[in-house]
Amino acid sequence: MSKPISQAVIRRLPRYYRYLGDLLDEGVERISSNDLSRTMHVTASQIRQDLNNFGGFGQQGYGYNVKFLHDEIGKILGLETTHNVIVIGVGNLGQAIANYVKFERLGFKMIGLFDVNPEIKGHLVRDIPIRMMDELPAFMEENKVDIAALTLPKAYAEETAKTLKDLGIKAIWNFAHVDLEGMGDVVVESVHLSDSLMTLSYNLSGSNER
Amino acid sequence: MSKPISQAVIRRLPRYYRYLGDLLDEGVERISSNDLSRTMHVTASQIRQDLNNFGGFGQQGYGYNVKFLHDEIGKILGLETTHNVIVIGVGNLGQAIANYVKFERLGFKMIGLFDVNPEIKGHLVRDIPIRMMDELPAFMEENKVDIAALTLPKAYAEETAKTLKDLGIKAIWNFAHVDLEGMGDVVVESVHLSDSLMTLSYNLSGSNER
Repeated sequence: MSKPISQAVIRRLPRYYRYLGDLLDEGVERISSNDLSRTMHVTASQIRQDLNNFGGFGQQGYGYNVKFLHDEIGKILGLETTHNVIVIGVGNLGQAIANYVKFERLGFKMIGLFDVNPEIKGHLVRDIPIRMMDELPAFMEENKVDIAALTLPKAYAEETAKTLKDLGIKAIWNFAHVDLEGMGDVVVESVHLSDSLMTLSYNLSGSNER
Repeated sequence: MSKPISQAVIRRLPRYYRYLGDLLDEGVERISSNDLSRTMHVTASQIRQDLNNFGGFGQQGYGYNVKFLHDEIGKILGLETTHNVIVIGVGNLGQAIANYVKFERLGFKMIGLFDVNPEIKGHLVRDIPIRMMDELPAFMEENKVDIAALTLPKAYAEETAKTLKDLGIKAIWNFAHVDLEGMGDVVVESVHLSDSLMTLSYNLSGSNER
């Protein structure tokens, strides 16, 4: 790509993909930017601007071909590639992530689960046995692992992230309440649940004031 | 407050709160905006600008009083108030949310768990019994419920959200893969995990190209 796309635009693409997928499920073949705008509560000009970042996709007056647009955005998001995922920390959250069938449909394939608790060693989650952390280096040597979901306490997250980096992980999906630093080329995407809850709290106290 | 604060600033506040909490734990009493800037990887001018939205907090040349700033941001975020929370959908994700001790420390108190599966009726998560959905109206009449975490499949999320709205819920923390619509004054904060994973995928394919 010639020009870097802003993270703000990129963060909106999954939402387009989700809405276009719903339209496909409903059998809609074409949609005008105005109708898409009404459905998504985004201005039509914002939609045109966003999609122009990737060369357009629409023909003036004819609207968008839903399937084509859906598939193209999928390609831009890298969803045509299968990504192998491991989960580190198999508590409730780790199990929730491992059990999400929807992720598999988006090309994210769960191939390994790791924990430090010997009591759950060998237990199966969706036919995948829980392995101990000391098996991780050999596992990563034998398997192509793209993404590690870190669903473990903050105290272990940074050390584990460094280990994963040294073992050649490409990306970390971080659920620990810490911003991982010094990760170099490793792509880090964080989901800070407590930050989200605090934002909700702020908006709630604002709404009480009104 | 005289002027509405942009959502971009609001979304940064929890991160300030988190870092200042860490500094407090480390026994740091004062910090200059330059040092805070280095720690948080945000420009010092961004920090000053953000905090000026709320009247400043810093004295030129003296830096910020960590505890004061932490507590003030906590107040702005509404964390001095206890918020009562219920979880609707007690699968792995719902249990993960219910078990997060950290949320309690931020003033979010888990008081109820609801599901539709009769097999888990009465089971305890942190001493809270799982109730059936038909008990929700009476529960909300008898208890002050501020926030409902929706950790259930998309197919049930919209209907359940409307029920909650009719029962007078103030805020919904939405984990279903759908943007809730027609919620009026109800504060909605969504965590779209698949959107986050797609963003990661995009950044990963970009990094492969380099």
